[in-house]
Amino acid sequence: MSDAFILGDWGTTQLRLFLCNDAGVLDRRFGRGIAQLERSPPDEFAAVAGDWLDDHRVDDAVLAGMVGSRTGWLETAYAPCPATAADLIASIARTECGDVSIAIVPGLSCVGPSGAPDVMRGEETQLFGALALEPRLRTERHVVALPGTHTKWVVVEDGRVIQFQTALTGELFALLRTSSTLLKTGGAASDAFDDDAFATGLDAARSERSLLHALFQVRSQQLVAGATPSYATSLLSGLLIGSDVNGAAELHHATDVTLIGERELASLYARALEARDARTRTLDGNECALAGLNAFARALSA
Amino acid sequence: MSDAFILGDWGTTQLRLFLCNDAGVLDRRFGRGIAQLERSPPDEFAAVAGDWLDDHRVDDAVLAGMVGSRTGWLETAYAPCPATAADLIASIARTECGDVSIAIVPGLSCVGPSGAPDVMRGEETQLFGALALEPRLRTERHVVALPGTHTKWVVVEDGRVIQFQTALTGELFALLRTSSTLLKTGGAASDAFDDDAFATGLDAARSERSLLHALFQVRSQQLVAGATPSYATSLLSGLLIGSDVNGAAELHHATDVTLIGERELASLYARALEARDARTRTLDGNECALAGLNAFARALSA
Repeated sequence: MSDAFILGDWGTTQLRLFLCNDAGVLDRRFGRGIAQLERSPPDEFAAVAGDWLDDHRVDDAVLAGMVGSRTGWLETAYAPCPATAADLIASIARTECGDVSIAIVPGLSCVGPSGAPDVMRGEETQLFGALALEPRLRTERHVVALPGTHTKWVVVEDGRVIQFQTALTGELFALLRTSSTLLKTGGAASDAFDDDAFATGLDAARSERSLLHALFQVRSQQLVAGATPSYATSLLSGLLIGSDVNGAAELHHATDVTLIGERELASLYARALEARDARTRTLDGNECALAGLNAFARALSA
Repeated sequence: MSDAFILGDWGTTQLRLFLCNDAGVLDRRFGRGIAQLERSPPDEFAAVAGDWLDDHRVDDAVLAGMVGSRTGWLETAYAPCPATAADLIASIARTECGDVSIAIVPGLSCVGPSGAPDVMRGEETQLFGALALEPRLRTERHVVALPGTHTKWVVVEDGRVIQFQTALTGELFALLRTSSTLLKTGGAASDAFDDDAFATGLDAARSERSLLHALFQVRSQQLVAGATPSYATSLLSGLLIGSDVNGAAELHHATDVTLIGERELASLYARALEARDARTRTLDGNECALAGLNAFARALSA
């Protein structure tokens, strides 16, 4: 039996578990997200880890994401910003599963630019993973965006998360695409991406500053101008991503943005940012999550 | 048998039919909206009108709203803005039901401030009804708002509809209230109105200009600050109505707004407008619809 440890990214819709040793990742497996569990979190963990626990000597696991929420395995308090990786590690909560000691990474909280509270859970691990992967992000000021269901815009200064803000972009796109009157007129919403429609949406988000007033054109373009469902869907995407980027870019005076996420979605944010003359670099979200978990595991075992 | 005519306001969710003569309304009845029909529109009309047609000599009916849409009784083309009541009447479409001649009022279309097309169907009848009821609205420039599922902001000049713009406010409120993550954390969304929360939403809509970025606080206030579901629901209402009013008020430099609609919703718009130092007056939406239908019936029989 060889020594190994387990890292886990356990979000709302998916569990990704990695069996690792000091040389790297030995194996990876998938399980159910926190919102989709059919058994308790410890039972799900033990079932997905399965024979890993027979074949290797596993003393430790580090888990991040919704696993630390009220509906997860063990609720962890949010670490308040400004926060470094060390601050986050100092707030890690502990439980166990059989002989395995489980470390659960807390989320981050902050007071947003407008004075309202904001929270993240899971993205902090990708963020500190990016800092582990990219030394340049550990000094000076950087604006980092993590596009997704709840897009996070984060300001990092000298390796410290100063403040962040959540935009409802992905969730609103999904809701409006499937459940609103905006996309029912021309038939089912289409998945085919329409480049011109997306660009038109970006332009419209800049000329029509009020998102509530801009959205209805997704419907009226179909009713009056014969737009197809795939045109309308990409127009909606451009309006929402454009509106998100305009709000964030003005707030942070961002001329250089690091994107962390899934390639396809990140490329849409990159287009919206580049249309505002901001430079972008994209890091893979899964790689950042793994790097963050690894950094926490190393710090905990040090 | 006495002479009578029928007026009808036939929207997506409800049919309201009025039996009238020159002295006024004799009777009123309700039927199913266009989206909820279980029989054809002529059959629904004949069934709801029922014994009216036996007891009175009814030659004419005037119907407005979604009855003139693609999914209604007879599709009527949108009359393009700028448009007067006379322009609308000239575009009325005709069909029949037994011995009754049916006039179907078209909607209005325009090119919005940002160059995108916009449409309304049903609100034009309330709007010209308001002009029939209030002579002051027939001269000079006025900004009229019709709050609802799709709130309409209309500029009227010398009795002519110059331009309008639709905001998705009511539909987005309903979607986010029932189907988003914003209101799932603290239990079921509550109907109890929280005055302070609504006012906080109005303020936040002004300080945080990006609606996408402002919305998440509805969730985070529950997660971090212990906000109740009824607080969160009213906060969401304030954010959306505030954002709608800010966008429209800046666009039209509106210092005086006529609201047409249901009292309770109109009062929330009035508060948002008054917080921006705009004066408001509210007209009842049902009275305006009936006045508009009456004005069209008089013009058609003249």
